[in-house]
Amino acid sequence: MSLNEAKKIAAYKAVDEWVQNDTAIGVGSGSTVVFAVERLAQRVSQENLRVVCVPTSFQARQLIVENNLQLGDLDRNPHLDCAIDGADEVDANMTLIKGGGGCLLQEKIVAACADKMIVIADYTKDSSKLGEQYKKGIPIEVVPMAYVPLRSRIQTRFGGKLKLRMAVAKAGPCVTDNGNFILDWDFDQQKEYDWDAVNRELIQMPGVVETGLFVNMARKAYFGMADGTVKERSA
Amino acid sequence: MSLNEAKKIAAYKAVDEWVQNDTAIGVGSGSTVVFAVERLAQRVSQENLRVVCVPTSFQARQLIVENNLQLGDLDRNPHLDCAIDGADEVDANMTLIKGGGGCLLQEKIVAACADKMIVIADYTKDSSKLGEQYKKGIPIEVVPMAYVPLRSRIQTRFGGKLKLRMAVAKAGPCVTDNGNFILDWDFDQQKEYDWDAVNRELIQMPGVVETGLFVNMARKAYFGMADGTVKERSA
Repeated sequence: MSLNEAKKIAAYKAVDEWVQNDTAIGVGSGSTVVFAVERLAQRVSQENLRVVCVPTSFQARQLIVENNLQLGDLDRNPHLDCAIDGADEVDANMTLIKGGGGCLLQEKIVAACADKMIVIADYTKDSSKLGEQYKKGIPIEVVPMAYVPLRSRIQTRFGGKLKLRMAVAKAGPCVTDNGNFILDWDFDQQKEYDWDAVNRELIQMPGVVETGLFVNMARKAYFGMADGTVKERSA
Repeated sequence: MSLNEAKKIAAYKAVDEWVQNDTAIGVGSGSTVVFAVERLAQRVSQENLRVVCVPTSFQARQLIVENNLQLGDLDRNPHLDCAIDGADEVDANMTLIKGGGGCLLQEKIVAACADKMIVIADYTKDSSKLGEQYKKGIPIEVVPMAYVPLRSRIQTRFGGKLKLRMAVAKAGPCVTDNGNFILDWDFDQQKEYDWDAVNRELIQMPGVVETGLFVNMARKAYFGMADGTVKERSA
């Protein structure tokens, strides 16, 4: 089974199990969410559901619009029933790394407004320990003026190495949907980190806008497996 | 003594006592900082000092440029000797409210890069307890998409009332130098808040970029008094 097929079966199962009529839901970003929106559009049309969709990025917004789903926002829908989103890695404790696609800030805002966050992914995101699968490090969204001092402060405090994420389609750094930079933190694989404590301390640092560490946020994860089954993990 | 004269004597004293040759310093924002930059320019020219100035706002940057001081940034000067900045209120424990002028994010970033933060203010900012003098509440800088859920979440959690700060020179909300909104939190004066804990919890909320609570950051405060003296407070 291809990775795309694995993403699809996870996404379809999550949408089938969690999306209910007359709710507002959060729509995550990334390649797996494409399948969730596809399935959601099928269900909305077949079952005549009333579901308002709140996007977590420009990409998510486009998906919602292109699939003729009802677009909402947190001004009108500050309370969401669930948020369905991908992840770059999910460990055994349901701690996530997110932000490989650069949308971590809005993703975390939306997830925090939802009663439950549901993660959908292919089997390459399934991990016992962070860093085992995802090799690009933990994305940390920072205010541009602060990236140099933060880079050394985080390195001194927690070890590893931080790299300013560079853009591909333009010269210079990758700029997020919110106008910030991303430091990808290649943390020290030999250390045992308490991710909850690390996340809290990172967020306290002035200039850190948000981190791609999602601790105690995801309720359930669906992994599409190579054999065509869907593996589930609960918090 | 007018308020402006009170600001001036505090600013002059702080610059005279803390600015040393061959250093990089942070330049705060607001009406009192105008006098600090004025004094700094005098000293630089008279004593032939080499001082690099890192601004905390567009306003600070303009002050530096107009006074022919050397403009720096945290990319080239990630470590600052001191940061000199105003405050909207300074309590007995040296906890500050900042952000009345909307520049709290860059001010906190710069202060966090400095060995010591020096506060300059007139006597109306001198307070035994936050809220005693400054009546506009604690500014909280938030990502625009999240202001509605954050407004109710903070109110539910901590009491008081939050208002989206509106612009004056344009229709709609006040937008910060970093493109965010400001919620002014008129907290409950009857409650006893642990500001360190409140600040930590606020910053953890996804969508809160920074707060105007400066806890354990200021080393020393100078208040220009009505009688022409300068009152000092140390952390």
